[in-house]
Amino acid sequence: MTVFDAKSIAIVGASREGNKVGHKILKNLISSYSGSIYPINPNASEILGIACYPNVKDIPNSVDMAVIAVPSKIVPSVLEDCGVKNVKTAVIISSGFKETGIEGAKLEKQCINIAKKYNMQIVGPNCFGVIDTDSGINTTFASQSPLKGNIGFMSQSGALCAAILDWASTEKVGFSKFISLGNKADLSENDFLQILYDDPNTKVILIYIEGLKDGQGFIKLTRRITKEKPVVVLKAGRTESGARAVASHTGTLAGSDNAYDAIFKQSGIIRVDSSEELFDYAMAFSYQPLPKGNRVAIITNAGGPGIIATDACEKKGLRLASFKRKTIDSLKENLPSAANIYNPVDVLGDATHERFASTLESLMNDSNVDSVLVLLTPQAMTDPIAVANTIAEISSKYKKPVLCSFMGGSAVVPGIDVLKENNIPNYSYPERAASSLMSMVIQKRITEQEYPNPKIFDVDKETVKKIFSSARSENRVNLGLEALDVLKAYGIPISKSIIVSNPKDAAKAADEIGYPVALKVVSPDILHKSDIGAVITNVKRDNIIKSYNQIINKTLKFMPKARILGVLVQEMVPDGVEIILGSTKDPQIGHLVMFGLGGIYVEILKDVSFGLAPLNEKIAESMISNIKAYSLLKGVRGEKPYDIDSISDSLLRVSQLVTDFPEIVEIDINPLKVFEKGKRCKAIDVRMILEVKK
Amino acid sequence: MTVFDAKSIAIVGASREGNKVGHKILKNLISSYSGSIYPINPNASEILGIACYPNVKDIPNSVDMAVIAVPSKIVPSVLEDCGVKNVKTAVIISSGFKETGIEGAKLEKQCINIAKKYNMQIVGPNCFGVIDTDSGINTTFASQSPLKGNIGFMSQSGALCAAILDWASTEKVGFSKFISLGNKADLSENDFLQILYDDPNTKVILIYIEGLKDGQGFIKLTRRITKEKPVVVLKAGRTESGARAVASHTGTLAGSDNAYDAIFKQSGIIRVDSSEELFDYAMAFSYQPLPKGNRVAIITNAGGPGIIATDACEKKGLRLASFKRKTIDSLKENLPSAANIYNPVDVLGDATHERFASTLESLMNDSNVDSVLVLLTPQAMTDPIAVANTIAEISSKYKKPVLCSFMGGSAVVPGIDVLKENNIPNYSYPERAASSLMSMVIQKRITEQEYPNPKIFDVDKETVKKIFSSARSENRVNLGLEALDVLKAYGIPISKSIIVSNPKDAAKAADEIGYPVALKVVSPDILHKSDIGAVITNVKRDNIIKSYNQIINKTLKFMPKARILGVLVQEMVPDGVEIILGSTKDPQIGHLVMFGLGGIYVEILKDVSFGLAPLNEKIAESMISNIKAYSLLKGVRGEKPYDIDSISDSLLRVSQLVTDFPEIVEIDINPLKVFEKGKRCKAIDVRMILEVKK
Repeated sequence: MTVFDAKSIAIVGASREGNKVGHKILKNLISSYSGSIYPINPNASEILGIACYPNVKDIPNSVDMAVIAVPSKIVPSVLEDCGVKNVKTAVIISSGFKETGIEGAKLEKQCINIAKKYNMQIVGPNCFGVIDTDSGINTTFASQSPLKGNIGFMSQSGALCAAILDWASTEKVGFSKFISLGNKADLSENDFLQILYDDPNTKVILIYIEGLKDGQGFIKLTRRITKEKPVVVLKAGRTESGARAVASHTGTLAGSDNAYDAIFKQSGIIRVDSSEELFDYAMAFSYQPLPKGNRVAIITNAGGPGIIATDACEKKGLRLASFKRKTIDSLKENLPSAANIYNPVDVLGDATHERFASTLESLMNDSNVDSVLVLLTPQAMTDPIAVANTIAEISSKYKKPVLCSFMGGSAVVPGIDVLKENNIPNYSYPERAASSLMSMVIQKRITEQEYPNPKIFDVDKETVKKIFSSARSENRVNLGLEALDVLKAYGIPISKSIIVSNPKDAAKAADEIGYPVALKVVSPDILHKSDIGAVITNVKRDNIIKSYNQIINKTLKFMPKARILGVLVQEMVPDGVEIILGSTKDPQIGHLVMFGLGGIYVEILKDVSFGLAPLNEKIAESMISNIKAYSLLKGVRGEKPYDIDSISDSLLRVSQLVTDFPEIVEIDINPLKVFEKGKRCKAIDVRMILEVKK
Repeated sequence: MTVFDAKSIAIVGASREGNKVGHKILKNLISSYSGSIYPINPNASEILGIACYPNVKDIPNSVDMAVIAVPSKIVPSVLEDCGVKNVKTAVIISSGFKETGIEGAKLEKQCINIAKKYNMQIVGPNCFGVIDTDSGINTTFASQSPLKGNIGFMSQSGALCAAILDWASTEKVGFSKFISLGNKADLSENDFLQILYDDPNTKVILIYIEGLKDGQGFIKLTRRITKEKPVVVLKAGRTESGARAVASHTGTLAGSDNAYDAIFKQSGIIRVDSSEELFDYAMAFSYQPLPKGNRVAIITNAGGPGIIATDACEKKGLRLASFKRKTIDSLKENLPSAANIYNPVDVLGDATHERFASTLESLMNDSNVDSVLVLLTPQAMTDPIAVANTIAEISSKYKKPVLCSFMGGSAVVPGIDVLKENNIPNYSYPERAASSLMSMVIQKRITEQEYPNPKIFDVDKETVKKIFSSARSENRVNLGLEALDVLKAYGIPISKSIIVSNPKDAAKAADEIGYPVALKVVSPDILHKSDIGAVITNVKRDNIIKSYNQIINKTLKFMPKARILGVLVQEMVPDGVEIILGSTKDPQIGHLVMFGLGGIYVEILKDVSFGLAPLNEKIAESMISNIKAYSLLKGVRGEKPYDIDSISDSLLRVSQLVTDFPEIVEIDINPLKVFEKGKRCKAIDVRMILEVKK
């Protein structure tokens, strides 16, 4: 049973006083809900003509939902009563919980425990309530009830709900369901997403959130939903990366906003930058069918706005449609000779609604046109109402989206009203219409998107387990050279490396690895080893001893206080491009995987991309092709391409590694040297940090 | 005498029929203008109670302005009559000129010639007319006359004018002057800019343009204006780069939009991306004083919108102010304990107008606060009208900008109306308020900006003249090695280079230059010389002959059809960073100067910056620091910085060169090798193209 199936509702805290929340909720409910309503108030026998009960437990019939609007301190005891009464859902309007500090958080925890005990679900606390225009459930104290419509809206901010209901009632925008999430103590965005997905009355889902409760669940769910219904999200608020020390590039660059971008992208969500866009896009999705593609036709009765719209369309990624011969002929026939019959079609300042009609009809019939944008400025000969009626009539005959921008004030408002009545979205400025249209094109592409399951590689999990437990047994979370072995166990090629502590062992190690080798001092205290001469490359057999001693001497000379853990003897790898590949764990969302070119690309240009594990091949490929320097990997100026497949492979293997071992907090493979196509790659150096066990 | 000083106006084409343009103009003029009005119509004795004349020449008194609304074909003869009558300004409303094609362009040219002959100025043709709310001049056929205000507006699109007048009258927005530029046959944006600058009634200037008539004049003028009045520009339409072959990096990257960005930036213009921003910013500038800096305080009665506003402010470049101790104490005293007294200040959902008042007063008194943003959502206890009145009252006492975002619909509209009446800008969404506030901060910075005169270097102009005229005499516009000498003459260090055509001369040249040298084949047909082995570096005396022959052989082998013009013997220059520095001429605007790092930075990352010549030191410096890879030049990871001063110096010298020799169409110094700080730079290769003389 979902929240909105409630057949009977109790209002705990129902009040006789008109300005009290508990009165307003009751009043809203009475006006729209046909189920049983039970006001709870120990000091009243009836309110608004309905019999009151002193306690939910006193209600003679069963109660599906309780709306609670009493001071926070008594909420737990009310919940206990509800539990005993077998109430399915408690909508807690009351504030004074987690949002107020430690005491409130305790109170909230208490409520959660009671709800669990009785298998009762909670909406809120600290929320504005929920509305279902279908069943008539309205547990809010809003002064306007929304019209019926196909927009499902949920918000983490109650005040935003109030503002939006007010705006929507003025603009005559309708909703299917309207949900204030509040503190999300129990039910969260994922629960309501499922409800809105299942709801036949909901065509588009709008969300305002400040954080996610379960990122992985959110992705799984929205991937499915967005193939059928557009989900438009305004994500506000920056979560702090917290006190965790961030030592690696991956950690530094993976701000939480990148994590959200990755989540949204991977699940087909349309993220907006502003509240205005949220509602602009909602209008488009609510009222119009999706376009087949990005080819737009523009009709305008004025040159300037036509140019503005053309600029905006192209900037957003739409393409001005090239009309078919037949269309051009028909436009030529129906429009005056001074008109521009190519796109944007200028029907001229003296255009009547007939001229708009014949033009729109031609364009709707052209299979090269995926959508039409109609611009209108107030002109002496132009009757905005007649034009609007014409647009409504013609557009209803076709399955192509038509969006409008009637520009101006009182002269065009009557026309805009006609558009609204006929479900044609209108935007005060052509740029907003273009943005909204592009969001529809993006949604069309999302519906066609596929989410293949991640490839599962055959890996040596046991070795990794052993390495980690051995590190744990030594109380180390910061892995050393063994991190390379972890990569190796997961099939990522590594350069052969051996740490030694005397010249003789260095020679032995080099014999084993094969000449020439590179020697590097191993010290946690030296950041840029080559700067002090503690790295020697291309060492041959005849000078291995000398080189070893040289490195130790240089280190002692320039960094006398540095701890020397040994000298690393490493295979010399051929020339290639250095990339950086890593993963960092976001406590709320999971493991972000990062990719970028090494050196200045990551350090200065921050040219990196992110994905959320588990990655599939498509995501890995788009992560690689999304960096600005991508063409470098493909080979510029006739240079041979690098082995991009091996990068993709490494990304997927790292993704599998952090999925198998969620205790990995950070991986930073820097560099992963990638050779030319077909010759794979090799991890040269890696940093790996495990979670501190609590 | 400017357009708006006209003391008497004739309307040629005045009509008795109410729906005719010539009637509407007369009616508008009668309703607002107190000067003499003379309708011209050979078939009427009076219209709207005013005596008609058959021809302007028949008017017994002097006539300052003629508004012409007759078919285009008879406009020239009307202009002749006006000239004879000594009319100062002709406002040509009629269309049918340049915008319709070749015939119309001829007609327009004819009009210009007549105007010149009589020293008469023309507004339009093909324009909507002009309005001056001070003198009452209104030559438009708009159905609404604008309110008096301090916004000066000019537009290259007449239809946009109509839409805006309609919008403004609905929104109660006032204008000082309102100008439709039309085809700009005579008077253009620069003329009206001067008028709006001189106009004491104009506080902010808005411009919609599709192209500039005189870019250099525009820069000169707007630099002066923007120090006193904000100039906000919406530039639409992409001008074609035309058929000119673009062979160099500079030419390819210097799209005309970059040119406009450079112009606007160098002249302190605020460029907007959309029509919505144009008017959002206009409200802010029109109604409120400029802030001292970017520290904003936010007051909100709801958490969510507070977070949205904070995000938007930070994204735009504003900083959330840190309040003074005194402010925090006073907020603590006046607000409930649950309120957030830090920025954004949350006065809570049950806030009365008194709570808004005490908070706003504290923040206005805090010298750490440069501006205040007030957010309001509809709440039971909150009276939007009372809050609006409170804001109006308090804000009038301080010289700090206050912007509002009352969010919602009919519940907040009465409050918004009060704000409007009191010149407090309100935005439906907090993001738009944040953008507008940031535009004010930018304007504040612009008023403090200085435009030093370009440094003039002592250069050898004569040598360049000789080189150019010698090339001209050979009918060459594409300069060869001599282009390096042009740079040298302008003080840009060049690497020594000599072209030779036999091994012996190669050795002689290398002796002169000094060893080692680089050898390169000279051929117009080979793009990537090193790919075929036709470049040999580090050539010493003992293998100069061999190297010469090797280059010729390789070229003959791999590119047997390539024309070989010789072999270039070039000085070997020390290691350094390769930059690219060039200039390209935009026919309308002048010489754009480009700067970027060489290689992949320019080819793949397009990390380049532009300025318009003549550059001054400030512009050159900001061009250098504006590229993303700038920190590379400053030295990363303890590396020594490169000689940035010499880059700036080279930019200024190139700027002087193209200013002195406007016939230069393109320069592409690629690479300019820049050495470490103090060691200057050297041009290795340069391409230079002169204009084809017509």
